[in-house]
Amino acid sequence: MTDPTVFADNDPYFIVAADSHAGLPTEQYREFLASKYHDAFDDFLGERAALLEEVTRMGIRDEAYAKKWFEDNDEGLAGGWDAIKRDQALDADGVAAEVVYPDADAVESRTCVPFGAGLGLRGDLDPELGMAGAQAHNRWLAELCAVSPERRCGVALVPITAELDDVLGEIRRAKESGLGAVMIPAMWVNQAPYHDRRYDPVWALCEELQMPVVTHSGSAARDEYGDHLGIYVTEVTWWPARPLWFLLWSGVFERFPGLRFGVTEGGCWWLPGLLWSWDRLFMGQKGAEKLGRDAFKGNVTMLPSEYVDRNIFTGLANVKRRELGMRYEIGIPNMCWGTDFPHPEGTWPNTRDWLVKTFFDIPVDETRRMLGLNAAEIFGFDLGSLRPLAEKIGPTPEDLGQLGDGRTAADLTAKWAGVKAVGRHWLTGHDFPLLPDF
Amino acid sequence: MTDPTVFADNDPYFIVAADSHAGLPTEQYREFLASKYHDAFDDFLGERAALLEEVTRMGIRDEAYAKKWFEDNDEGLAGGWDAIKRDQALDADGVAAEVVYPDADAVESRTCVPFGAGLGLRGDLDPELGMAGAQAHNRWLAELCAVSPERRCGVALVPITAELDDVLGEIRRAKESGLGAVMIPAMWVNQAPYHDRRYDPVWALCEELQMPVVTHSGSAARDEYGDHLGIYVTEVTWWPARPLWFLLWSGVFERFPGLRFGVTEGGCWWLPGLLWSWDRLFMGQKGAEKLGRDAFKGNVTMLPSEYVDRNIFTGLANVKRRELGMRYEIGIPNMCWGTDFPHPEGTWPNTRDWLVKTFFDIPVDETRRMLGLNAAEIFGFDLGSLRPLAEKIGPTPEDLGQLGDGRTAADLTAKWAGVKAVGRHWLTGHDFPLLPDF
Repeated sequence: MTDPTVFADNDPYFIVAADSHAGLPTEQYREFLASKYHDAFDDFLGERAALLEEVTRMGIRDEAYAKKWFEDNDEGLAGGWDAIKRDQALDADGVAAEVVYPDADAVESRTCVPFGAGLGLRGDLDPELGMAGAQAHNRWLAELCAVSPERRCGVALVPITAELDDVLGEIRRAKESGLGAVMIPAMWVNQAPYHDRRYDPVWALCEELQMPVVTHSGSAARDEYGDHLGIYVTEVTWWPARPLWFLLWSGVFERFPGLRFGVTEGGCWWLPGLLWSWDRLFMGQKGAEKLGRDAFKGNVTMLPSEYVDRNIFTGLANVKRRELGMRYEIGIPNMCWGTDFPHPEGTWPNTRDWLVKTFFDIPVDETRRMLGLNAAEIFGFDLGSLRPLAEKIGPTPEDLGQLGDGRTAADLTAKWAGVKAVGRHWLTGHDFPLLPDF
Repeated sequence: MTDPTVFADNDPYFIVAADSHAGLPTEQYREFLASKYHDAFDDFLGERAALLEEVTRMGIRDEAYAKKWFEDNDEGLAGGWDAIKRDQALDADGVAAEVVYPDADAVESRTCVPFGAGLGLRGDLDPELGMAGAQAHNRWLAELCAVSPERRCGVALVPITAELDDVLGEIRRAKESGLGAVMIPAMWVNQAPYHDRRYDPVWALCEELQMPVVTHSGSAARDEYGDHLGIYVTEVTWWPARPLWFLLWSGVFERFPGLRFGVTEGGCWWLPGLLWSWDRLFMGQKGAEKLGRDAFKGNVTMLPSEYVDRNIFTGLANVKRRELGMRYEIGIPNMCWGTDFPHPEGTWPNTRDWLVKTFFDIPVDETRRMLGLNAAEIFGFDLGSLRPLAEKIGPTPEDLGQLGDGRTAADLTAKWAGVKAVGRHWLTGHDFPLLPDF
């Protein structure tokens, strides 16, 4: 038998979407909610109109665009909750496997999780209702994932600011039901920040169960933004990234070396600057001399970039060329591509075209990692069982324009050799990012 | 008479420190405070010990380092409040002029402004005490700046979240007293965010009086950080930058095209990524198609990067090589170098050495702008009256290692031509920052 982890140059890509979305049409979550929450659910449904009005006011929704989107993509959008149609959409896009977040509908929120426990999960949700809503989604998601389970890693919603026993219980239950990762609120709001040791049992359990902990863009300090869309867009990628430095500097990765933490749909363009500034701080460079000699209190004993390489990853919906250019600073193993299916800001249903536009000159082995092998390792997908499907649907490096017309894999590698040698310039003796000859 | 704005290749640099600090030993602010606040001032003095303990606990202060710092730099540190000694320190550093922020002592806070109205100025200060403390500093600072006034632009502290009439009155009074810029709280905390139209009279007045509005790093969400220094260091540059996107996206620069807004001692390494993401949002690129067609509501009618070029600048204490490498993306006119005198994380008393280390290969005309001409234009320094002093004390391009040994100004320009042509790559048809040949 062929080794499923070995690829010839032009073998089809094994593609994992590290960011996709599924959710039931909201009303249908009722049957997954305990009946004592049905009255509260009716109230919640009544408030949805107001929410839709808010996003329209902020400019996040264009009515004409929405109408056309739903008309044009009727069949595929049903893949938001219908596993068979979903697999068809994945196949057409060349995607072998996926990491499944909530909220399939990003245009009119028709599939939102009860009680605000979806992508907008926040620390100030009512703890009981928040957990009930999260559980309803988690139960349904486990059913969805049970169809083609080898293709799906379902992300359990876990409001970890709730009662600790409930939190640990839900993580265990989610794992047993087949889900594979834990999404926590990006914002703790009025609850304990994530440096607090009260969360250590949560990190310990996720490490033990090998469930990556993730945030996803969605919640933000909206009550401060008025109706200014640009402020929201600026900050909606900052809030989900914020837990990263709370965990890192408070020693969570020192205490739980096997824990994986991922920031999803927040991009990764902001990471190089942080890595540079963090490593410099740790190394005591200019500006840090006045600090106490035990400034890190044993919480950080190696370079912050080393924790990032060991513990952190980014889930990238429609990665940008600018970000790919920075991949040697970010760390290629830390970048997991995604489609954002079925959201309109993602690449579906034109993923194959987007892959060409984005990856046409990226070395093949690096592309393999970012497009799938990184996520397969982090989320525990089984290459052996999925490889035949990937062979059938995955685009090849030639399809992506990387190989052919006389270009070899070695040519691509050579093109980037200088940039790669610069890498994290502050560790390689270079002054500037990207520039080999300075 | 020679034109003071024209420089020959190796003329000494006209240097302006766009970030320096001055403050009275705290007890001495008493005489600048109205007597009705003296009791409150006694209470404030009593609380200082607790503050010192807090920074020590967080690891921001190393006792042994502090002792040596004060012993070694006794004379120069007195320049924190003594104008004669201050001018001597500036001369020795080669600095012709300076923009003066509060809080001379960044090691033990011995010169802090009453009632927390210094660098840590926040929206949740008691409005009356906050304004009283700010005024005490502003009054004293005007006296300091009256010695060698052509060399100094004093920054008035103005807690703009206080009563509007008081705010406008203090800005006018500060201007009349000789101060030249307005520092606002970086964080509004529980007050109205800066997109609120209630602040329009403040922006209008600052535009009218040609007083740049600035924030300075200092305040941060410390109550969320526990004693984790790394979290603080990560966020202490984010909070002072935050008002920038609130002003930009809410149309403040559209309504007040002559207003200048600066972020000081927050670096500028974070700006390229934001410019790229903002311009893309404005241009409606992938991911923005679903937005309403009037998403910006007339508040933003040109590229965000165009507002940045017209209205925004950064004050850079000890600019880093990484940041200089990104100067064609950031915009050279938007970068104002500073010493951070007399803070230990700044370049004083070794500024000449730091200039060599940092600027040795940067084109001379660009260096002239960043080291002084940008700040001279923004803060209204008079080149004519200061040029003789600059000729006497300023280092030359040869002193900085830029020219000589056969290197000409044209050689430096040629070295960077490719990187310059890339510039803001999303506007010049390049996919990646910095890289000319991709």
